[in-house]
Amino acid sequence: MTKLLTPQELEGQLRAIGEARYHNLHPFHRMLHGGKCTKGQIQAWAINRYYYQAMIPIKDASLIARCEDQAIRRIWRQRLEDHDGDGTSEMGSGIDRWLALTDGLGLDRADVVSIRLLLPGTRFAVEAYVQFVRDRTLLEAIASSLTELFSPQIITERVRGMLAHYDYVKPATLAYFDKRPPQAARDAEFALSYVKSHARSAEQQQAVLAALHFKCDVLWSMLDALEHAYVTPGRIPPGAFVPDDARG
Amino acid sequence: MTKLLTPQELEGQLRAIGEARYHNLHPFHRMLHGGKCTKGQIQAWAINRYYYQAMIPIKDASLIARCEDQAIRRIWRQRLEDHDGDGTSEMGSGIDRWLALTDGLGLDRADVVSIRLLLPGTRFAVEAYVQFVRDRTLLEAIASSLTELFSPQIITERVRGMLAHYDYVKPATLAYFDKRPPQAARDAEFALSYVKSHARSAEQQQAVLAALHFKCDVLWSMLDALEHAYVTPGRIPPGAFVPDDARG
Repeated sequence: MTKLLTPQELEGQLRAIGEARYHNLHPFHRMLHGGKCTKGQIQAWAINRYYYQAMIPIKDASLIARCEDQAIRRIWRQRLEDHDGDGTSEMGSGIDRWLALTDGLGLDRADVVSIRLLLPGTRFAVEAYVQFVRDRTLLEAIASSLTELFSPQIITERVRGMLAHYDYVKPATLAYFDKRPPQAARDAEFALSYVKSHARSAEQQQAVLAALHFKCDVLWSMLDALEHAYVTPGRIPPGAFVPDDARG
Repeated sequence: MTKLLTPQELEGQLRAIGEARYHNLHPFHRMLHGGKCTKGQIQAWAINRYYYQAMIPIKDASLIARCEDQAIRRIWRQRLEDHDGDGTSEMGSGIDRWLALTDGLGLDRADVVSIRLLLPGTRFAVEAYVQFVRDRTLLEAIASSLTELFSPQIITERVRGMLAHYDYVKPATLAYFDKRPPQAARDAEFALSYVKSHARSAEQQQAVLAALHFKCDVLWSMLDALEHAYVTPGRIPPGAFVPDDARG
């Protein structure tokens, strides 16, 4: 039988999952921040990742919608505010800042928002995440957000690499990423502390580990779909975004 | 506005979607039946496709579970019988016949059934299909089965090509495919006739077309995930099946 871990051991195993499976290890991430992507590949990344950004508040609201603890609902509401904004502030919402990125890359905003050019693999991975948060226990839903533990590092690599290598990428285009590291660190700290104190049985601890494992698969699979379609020649699926530089 | 199609025009547009998007056009299908796959690639295909096969009765039962028309429930029940069998007949169920294929390819049955070696991209695509059938209208759920219209052709190509090119593939290993063409033709005929008579508004007709479009994306995306992981070198995601011939 699986043995009960101390909270510290549980944290260690969660961090080990990130070290083995977080998408900073994916070849496409290395291409992107290493300056090896074409503009069309960066556009494809931004247009596909938009769907993930757009579904995050849906995911978070699904979590709040099934949470009977008012204190947690209040804390989780901060994520809705971060991603949806209040419609008035200068910087706008996380989704608006993502659209500033797609604008800056020369993409048509109506195309991006319509998600009609999305890769099916992106759509299915993001939907699997939303569905997971809807269907599983609150503990697993919260645990699936723990990839935020590793995101400050990937964001730093990405921003530094993109500004250094692509002259059409400007600091203002990457405003999304300026805001995220402190938000992600705060959110991850809460979620980590929650799972460490609420996963009390060995079975619950395994469910927490499996939830993070699943979430790493979601992010990895999005980059797999992207790399397959836009790096391997001739593999853009019917109907998906075709960059100018890939038109034959 | 979209105009109302005649039932014949609707059928024509459905068949056109298959001609443009069915997965017989995917490079991995061409590799498989053209004799270009390694045994490890065929094993990876069979182990991933198993999950699709295993979820088909879940999908069909979800459809029956939300159908208020007894006559349709009775007709759809045939699909459960085909895929789950009655536990007694010599040939067994569709799922058993798929396991005869994975056995014949030298895969461990416990590994296959556990789905622990599945590609995340396969899992998310199959789950998207099951979820679609659960969430959408009955008309869309039925329309999403219409890829069966095109399956007799792909099965014929696949069986002929696999027997001709791979000496370890025997006719008994491919027994699954012997049974499917007449079942698929019968099922597709019912579903086509249903959507032609029940999609009465232009909006319903567009929903029917979108459902088939979606289902083609599911099948295409499964082969994308497979090709990316097992044809592009060094791209097997963490935790997925590693064929003997891919071990470094």
